[in-house]
Amino acid sequence: MDAKTSTQIRIAVDDLFDAETEFLSELTAHPSTRGNEQSAQDFMARELADRGMEVDRWQIDVNDICDLPGFSPVIGNYDDAVNVVGRHRSQTGKGRSLILNGHIDVVPEGPLDMWDTPPYSPRVEGGWMYGRGAGDMKAGLASNLFALDALRACGYQPAADVFFQSVVEEECTGNGALACLQRGYRADAALIPEPFAEQLVTAQLGVIWFQVHLKGLPTHVAYAGSGSNAIEAAIPLIAALHEMEDRWNAPACRHADYAGHDHALNLNIGKVAGGDWASSVPAWCVFDVRMGIFPGQDIAAAKAEIEEVLRQAARDNAFLRNNTPEIVYHGFHAEGYALSEDKSVKASQAIGALEGAHHAVTDTALNKEAITATTDARFFGLYADTPALVYGPKAEAIHGFNERVDLESVRRVTQTTALFIAEWCGLEPAG
Amino acid sequence: MDAKTSTQIRIAVDDLFDAETEFLSELTAHPSTRGNEQSAQDFMARELADRGMEVDRWQIDVNDICDLPGFSPVIGNYDDAVNVVGRHRSQTGKGRSLILNGHIDVVPEGPLDMWDTPPYSPRVEGGWMYGRGAGDMKAGLASNLFALDALRACGYQPAADVFFQSVVEEECTGNGALACLQRGYRADAALIPEPFAEQLVTAQLGVIWFQVHLKGLPTHVAYAGSGSNAIEAAIPLIAALHEMEDRWNAPACRHADYAGHDHALNLNIGKVAGGDWASSVPAWCVFDVRMGIFPGQDIAAAKAEIEEVLRQAARDNAFLRNNTPEIVYHGFHAEGYALSEDKSVKASQAIGALEGAHHAVTDTALNKEAITATTDARFFGLYADTPALVYGPKAEAIHGFNERVDLESVRRVTQTTALFIAEWCGLEPAG
Repeated sequence: MDAKTSTQIRIAVDDLFDAETEFLSELTAHPSTRGNEQSAQDFMARELADRGMEVDRWQIDVNDICDLPGFSPVIGNYDDAVNVVGRHRSQTGKGRSLILNGHIDVVPEGPLDMWDTPPYSPRVEGGWMYGRGAGDMKAGLASNLFALDALRACGYQPAADVFFQSVVEEECTGNGALACLQRGYRADAALIPEPFAEQLVTAQLGVIWFQVHLKGLPTHVAYAGSGSNAIEAAIPLIAALHEMEDRWNAPACRHADYAGHDHALNLNIGKVAGGDWASSVPAWCVFDVRMGIFPGQDIAAAKAEIEEVLRQAARDNAFLRNNTPEIVYHGFHAEGYALSEDKSVKASQAIGALEGAHHAVTDTALNKEAITATTDARFFGLYADTPALVYGPKAEAIHGFNERVDLESVRRVTQTTALFIAEWCGLEPAG
Repeated sequence: MDAKTSTQIRIAVDDLFDAETEFLSELTAHPSTRGNEQSAQDFMARELADRGMEVDRWQIDVNDICDLPGFSPVIGNYDDAVNVVGRHRSQTGKGRSLILNGHIDVVPEGPLDMWDTPPYSPRVEGGWMYGRGAGDMKAGLASNLFALDALRACGYQPAADVFFQSVVEEECTGNGALACLQRGYRADAALIPEPFAEQLVTAQLGVIWFQVHLKGLPTHVAYAGSGSNAIEAAIPLIAALHEMEDRWNAPACRHADYAGHDHALNLNIGKVAGGDWASSVPAWCVFDVRMGIFPGQDIAAAKAEIEEVLRQAARDNAFLRNNTPEIVYHGFHAEGYALSEDKSVKASQAIGALEGAHHAVTDTALNKEAITATTDARFFGLYADTPALVYGPKAEAIHGFNERVDLESVRRVTQTTALFIAEWCGLEPAG
């Protein structure tokens, strides 16, 4: 691409940035937590259709995907899980095709009184946009869309097919991205602007979710003996899980990309509920756990070890010896994925194209980083032989209170994305 | 009372026992958990009115009682809290008046799958009636009522006023019994047939309920550091509370009636809730605690120590140092009560009357016992100068699954109660 076109595209992003900010604000106002994504998906589908894309909007059917590699178990059905894909058809098809992927689902906002302002009433302050999902990852969806808009504003469109994916379920299973694969969407590369501060993600962890259910025979508290309490019975199990976490993080167990990470694999007790009455010894307790695994770590083996750790800890506990904990899996069965291990020409070309675009916008070299979370990139990389580049804006407090995204960073990522599309797909006159 | 009358009364209880069992079954079928007592209270009011008593049915007003000694703090209002009192007016008034007290509220049934049969579909098997509340303490309400019925079947009624109280809120505050006091109900003694296996309760503990609220600033689990988790932050607080529990149970701290109890004061973590999402570090956690105190132990001092223990434990914890736990009191602020310390003539006469009745029915001496729970007896004993005898049937698994009451024990307690009424109040011809 010549310098003039590059400059023209970046200026077009600047010119559209007020509209992009407005779009991001409108999208963030949809409280698209799990099961509540429909209005946000309607909004996305309209925006894609308005731009002349062919829109595919479908409800995920668990039966279509449950036997595929990468599927994560889910409780209940998917009556409320709708994916949206917009397809740009190139006139010439002379370039390399691309998937622009982003997830529409956001994690629960938590207690409202811990937010300075309401999580679904986005506001801009000091160059940041605040709101649940503003960073993770509605800014990425905005960037994907306005990168294409900027090309069009310059009279161009990608010279290869581009699939704009707005998927559900990234935050709990990844089954939204999996359903896109199952539906046949494929391309030469994928870009996912998750909020990792304008760095290219070279490796991501896998994640396993599990619930531990404890049940026992309680009594009136007047007769409470030690070890008879289902809530307190959880405590030694949590301690045993943390010991396992330490073992898995030991230097000898680390994937090469995480050699310098002291504690890449986090075990999180994310949720707990137990008991019914202060003066009854609680009969039940359930806690939800998230555990990371390294790329290459086998999920079945990891699950077997988790189960053995819990069984062993239960044997050492008076209450649990007679009330074996039940382990329920629903949610992530996600393998790790390392783009760094993809030695294909496509992968190095895609990374090269992103490096060039990033440099053109920021005048700095592209930082590369192994992250301690998962993303939908694994579906493209592991199950569709497609290099998946995770590269998005800077955000803070994702999954926390006062989540926010740096708008200047969003602008730069949009520019980089537009230049990357231009380089990867090539350009043709807008149709 | 002559032997013939005594025999006649006991036979009358036997004759009515099928009806009493049927009544108990019908009453137990009402799921009268906190806030849901109305249908059971309607049933009680009808039964009392059918027997010619004057029925007083009123909604508790927190404003009427909140400044009285013995009041326990409550969240929300009492729109759904209704007491029922039936009054028997003696023609002669020659005897000693009596309050027959029982509570209509039951504790939550917990997970239904842990019951062999549904908790509100009472059934009889092997001489036990099963159902939530069958023992604690609807059998006591049945016994109170059918003791009066048996007298009437013999052509008698009490020769003094008798107040039949069916109160709410025993299981969480005692404010139902307190509201009866506030409304002016007084008598020379009170009988409360709580299910303590045909023993006379000589002392009961006090109980304090409190909630501990933990809140902090969470993040995506990818960035979880140690000590940042609100759920896990509860663990050292619970440990510190158990250390306090050990101190309070030390021999030097024990009330005389509990000198032989190794562990009378139980601290119970009865309920917990925290977090919203497996992959978000939880921002909040709330746990509910019940702690026992000895008779004579000052509630304000106990609360101050609880608060200091939590503050100190919080100071030692990285997360809590910056996120001080909030302690909320709602529920029991119950002092202990020792009938054994009531040296009045009335008290020894009442105990003597019960001893005689118990011996006449069981041919055994009355066992006396200090219990590790609280009952509404404290209101009569501490705040109305009225000896309160807690004496009721044998039950098992109260507050647990498959709660049950021994029907032969209910029969004996009904007989003992009828004889006690005859002795305490005297008899006059039924009006």
